[in-house]
Amino acid sequence: MKKAVVLLSGGLDSTTCLAIAKDRGFEVYALSFDYGQKHSIELELASYNAEKFGASEHKIAHLDREFFRTSSLTDHNIKVKKDSYDSTKIPDSYVPARNTVFLSYALAYAETIGAEAIFIGVNSLDYSGYPDCRPEYIAAYQKVADLALKSSVEKGIKLIIEAPLISMTKAEIIRTGKDLGVDYSKTISCYEPVLGKACGHCDSCILRRKGFEESGYKDETAYV
Amino acid sequence: MKKAVVLLSGGLDSTTCLAIAKDRGFEVYALSFDYGQKHSIELELASYNAEKFGASEHKIAHLDREFFRTSSLTDHNIKVKKDSYDSTKIPDSYVPARNTVFLSYALAYAETIGAEAIFIGVNSLDYSGYPDCRPEYIAAYQKVADLALKSSVEKGIKLIIEAPLISMTKAEIIRTGKDLGVDYSKTISCYEPVLGKACGHCDSCILRRKGFEESGYKDETAYV
Repeated sequence: MKKAVVLLSGGLDSTTCLAIAKDRGFEVYALSFDYGQKHSIELELASYNAEKFGASEHKIAHLDREFFRTSSLTDHNIKVKKDSYDSTKIPDSYVPARNTVFLSYALAYAETIGAEAIFIGVNSLDYSGYPDCRPEYIAAYQKVADLALKSSVEKGIKLIIEAPLISMTKAEIIRTGKDLGVDYSKTISCYEPVLGKACGHCDSCILRRKGFEESGYKDETAYV
Repeated sequence: MKKAVVLLSGGLDSTTCLAIAKDRGFEVYALSFDYGQKHSIELELASYNAEKFGASEHKIAHLDREFFRTSSLTDHNIKVKKDSYDSTKIPDSYVPARNTVFLSYALAYAETIGAEAIFIGVNSLDYSGYPDCRPEYIAAYQKVADLALKSSVEKGIKLIIEAPLISMTKAEIIRTGKDLGVDYSKTISCYEPVLGKACGHCDSCILRRKGFEESGYKDETAYV
């Protein structure tokens, strides 16, 4: 059975990605990160969905938090902005090199277990404008994966970075996940949840709510 | 003053790289990693040289060791091979995705402090055959750096991955470092040192010894 590492934050996108990887017949190895995010409750939901979708393993890597501080997602001195979504700007929720670090760990993990794919739930339509979510970024990272690994260079094992959501709207992602059995009430997208409930006003909540409205599905998100 | 992050292992190459970055007029921010390496004594020498060469900061990032286990450098069940250097093969001292993870942390660090360069002491002549030390790998990673960062995409700040040793022989590296004041007795290259002394027989010791022989300089390495 083909193996895949799935980057799983516990949010809407990555959980859908997990369901897609399973649906495509992969044996799934889920990988999450504790990097000091304020919304670390997402890790509990990541574990829930890793188990629900039959992941063979779910690893939570602990990153050195010091390197990921200058973001409203990690620095308690920087407030998460509310009701200010602007698709033309990179917001201060941006975390330096986050996907690059996540994919790097995924490379190490994938090579170790002999995986053929890494699934990452980036998308570049209804998104927060992060540069490391764009197709050109993923293409560049694929080239790094081709050149970095012993398994690739010596044995010709190609490790594919799969980004199945990259050209989908949030509504399309939700419809896809629903078809594959995702329970979105067991995912959290909010950047600053309170007691497990979403704020409803950060960029991520705004995009998620809009996605549900356009999808035709009821938004079962618990809001504060 | 231009800032640079210097990846500093405490070995011969990266210490030379540090001296080169200083010589080129950079304000230096040194970055080392504790990833469970058997030769973690190198971190003490990294600190020594960071201070000697006037680094403004020296950070030691603690990586989640679990991801870097399948190597003779980190797994105490895999012996470091002795007297078996073979330039045509990738040896089992290879650590999965190591430079990719190191560079990813360096990207986050560089963006946070506003650095214009990352120095990495890879070379692809007298080396252990690691795929992530080759020029094509560094070129691919440069492309990732160009596309991943907010500072690059939004403000047009180009972050250059500098690999000044990449086409140098070990002897040339040693001569360069000597000219710039490196004390190689305060560096360690050995994969399995004993009480701070080099084994003299692992791939890294063999390359280092050959380098000194060809450089015309006395090898001041302390061997067991």
